[in-house]
Amino acid sequence: MVSVAIMGHGVVGSGVAEILTTHKKKLFASLGEEIYVKHILDLREFPDSPLADRFTKNFDDIINDREVRVVVEVMGGLKPAYEYVKKCLLSGKSVVTSNKELVAAHGAELLAIAKEENVNFLFEASVGGGIPIIRPMSQCLVANIVYEVAGILNGTTNFILTKMIEDGMQFEDALKLAQDLGFAERNPAADIEGHDACRKICILASLAFGKHVYPEFVHTEGITKITLDDVKYAEAYDSVIKLIGKVKRLDDGRIDIIVAPMFVPNKSQLANIDNEFNGIMVRGDCTGDVVFYGKGAGKLPTASAVVADVVDCCKHLKTRKYLFWTDGDGKNIIPMEESVNAMYVRVKGDDVIAKATKAFGDVTEINRESDPQGETAFVTKQMPYGEFADKLENFKANDAEVLSFIRIGDL
Amino acid sequence: MVSVAIMGHGVVGSGVAEILTTHKKKLFASLGEEIYVKHILDLREFPDSPLADRFTKNFDDIINDREVRVVVEVMGGLKPAYEYVKKCLLSGKSVVTSNKELVAAHGAELLAIAKEENVNFLFEASVGGGIPIIRPMSQCLVANIVYEVAGILNGTTNFILTKMIEDGMQFEDALKLAQDLGFAERNPAADIEGHDACRKICILASLAFGKHVYPEFVHTEGITKITLDDVKYAEAYDSVIKLIGKVKRLDDGRIDIIVAPMFVPNKSQLANIDNEFNGIMVRGDCTGDVVFYGKGAGKLPTASAVVADVVDCCKHLKTRKYLFWTDGDGKNIIPMEESVNAMYVRVKGDDVIAKATKAFGDVTEINRESDPQGETAFVTKQMPYGEFADKLENFKANDAEVLSFIRIGDL
Repeated sequence: MVSVAIMGHGVVGSGVAEILTTHKKKLFASLGEEIYVKHILDLREFPDSPLADRFTKNFDDIINDREVRVVVEVMGGLKPAYEYVKKCLLSGKSVVTSNKELVAAHGAELLAIAKEENVNFLFEASVGGGIPIIRPMSQCLVANIVYEVAGILNGTTNFILTKMIEDGMQFEDALKLAQDLGFAERNPAADIEGHDACRKICILASLAFGKHVYPEFVHTEGITKITLDDVKYAEAYDSVIKLIGKVKRLDDGRIDIIVAPMFVPNKSQLANIDNEFNGIMVRGDCTGDVVFYGKGAGKLPTASAVVADVVDCCKHLKTRKYLFWTDGDGKNIIPMEESVNAMYVRVKGDDVIAKATKAFGDVTEINRESDPQGETAFVTKQMPYGEFADKLENFKANDAEVLSFIRIGDL
Repeated sequence: MVSVAIMGHGVVGSGVAEILTTHKKKLFASLGEEIYVKHILDLREFPDSPLADRFTKNFDDIINDREVRVVVEVMGGLKPAYEYVKKCLLSGKSVVTSNKELVAAHGAELLAIAKEENVNFLFEASVGGGIPIIRPMSQCLVANIVYEVAGILNGTTNFILTKMIEDGMQFEDALKLAQDLGFAERNPAADIEGHDACRKICILASLAFGKHVYPEFVHTEGITKITLDDVKYAEAYDSVIKLIGKVKRLDDGRIDIIVAPMFVPNKSQLANIDNEFNGIMVRGDCTGDVVFYGKGAGKLPTASAVVADVVDCCKHLKTRKYLFWTDGDGKNIIPMEESVNAMYVRVKGDDVIAKATKAFGDVTEINRESDPQGETAFVTKQMPYGEFADKLENFKANDAEVLSFIRIGDL
């Protein structure tokens, strides 16, 4: 019997407790011994829970219990999760977390402590919810040099964009629907501004390239400025707009990492990932493209990924899984100005294509069935963002009102 | 340093040797020690190989070498692969194979020997080539009760069907193109008759449900009878025809397993998996649908999956991965007659819909933009195959010439 503690009894935490209870037999068959939930930490009361006798409000009950070998952190946020997780690892307990904010902010440090203490720090559920991605990347793709990871990493924004694309809903209406259906928080900033996707691509980039990438190193744009006109121009360009988190290794060894809405060609595997689903593409030198798809959030999908990690910790109480990266200072990341993309530009004004050709060189006009009054859209050739920004200034100076621009994803 | 031997130096085997050589540094970083290729078994001569000094034609050099802890079997076929693998396991060596024929025919026995000898028998590359699927299913989904696995498991037939769908090629022309491009063998029977897909779904079914499913238990149809007319009727029904391997757990605990061409609705994630790619959907009670997509064959994708297993064996020289199923007698599989599907039927004759309604009850006619002269197609309601077959006889007796029928996939 292995004793575990669960810190947090919210959506994911209650799911973890539920799966550990309802799937007891299957887990026993897999592990060969029982997983016993000894403590559940939460400040609230849950008198009706079948595990009511396990609840505590005192973290000391967990940290001081030498029988507890694995601790699940599903509180979310950094305070007090960071302090608690650190203390657990330092006292020789393995930790499993679904907390992407924690891993993105302190992953390198916590992995180093885990290594030092010869315990495991696992976080499969922090990216892609129930989709296996951390383990396949670190284990199955061990024989590959990964050179790119790109994905739709946030279900809320993907739901909103899907409603805009398929049902012609305005952004605000789609956001409200997402909130009504429980896919978006009352305060949706972390999702719609791209911060959640950013944390996830930071975790995947750290894992793929071995150096911690902190969110503040990453140029991050959300989807709040996307309009239905942009969506329709994308359609006319055989593409869909998706919020993409992407990291790519360049020939000089540096990495190009970004979170931004992009035009995704319809033929890309990522184009068909709709609604609240997530999809992650990993490009390896041997495997080529491998794509993982599924529900990126939700109580049971996320909780099942947490429980799989718990089982793995229980199997490896005396050995360590290979899952590690060192700290990073951001010097391996190229400045956003050097990042190369073609760019979609939507403009109000006359003689747009002539002016655009003058400013950007050859451009491709996008023709919608009915262009909005006085608007024109075009796609530039690939160029570094810094060059694009300079040329855009020249273009604007020539009496062209730029309404929006969006990167063309090379996906 | 861990010494390994590779049996077979064909396409996959040479890829394994290549990756173990070119990715030495990365593998060392992951494993913490060197993987040394000590022997390569092949009856042919490879004087120009950088590993020319490791070749042997004598299996005894491997079996008698106590330093060899892990043996890679990439010979294919059952003779002598089965005998060699069995001997390796019995002498305490872990075995990694990409040989789906071997795993489908003898998996339960070989897993039992591996368990008895406390070594590992791993076969990630036997299904889905470079796509991680065996490990995610056995590990990541440990906290799920899997109730369905369905996939496009054969790249050759998927390539042929894609060419029929997208380019309007006839089956024979698409097969020839696949052969010219190296996607199909000169003798393509194992692919186009569905046997390769059958072996793979047998392996996934055995893994998911714990009892060995032998290929001879599984109703298997290939794609040789699919015509361009069927493809176009599928299109008019918002579907594509794909060769699907599928296994589903029924409420009574038995399983329904089949390999057959099916109409796959365009909205299914499996519909967009084209050309030589494979895609596998796993339905779990907690995760919902998770889909894995990538190249299902090819030298380096397959070899990279083999190497990942080799690394895993090297990491677990003294412990066993949990990957196991017991022998099966087929009694947990429902007879094909009980398997429930709606059915597409294409017919030559007059008054087809009236006759069909009489024979099958309500049917849905499929209208193509230009129906072929004198042909009609319709879709029946869902019914067990036995009932369908009986009704089809009545229908035919009523002067209706049935040209083809294909299952409607519930995917």
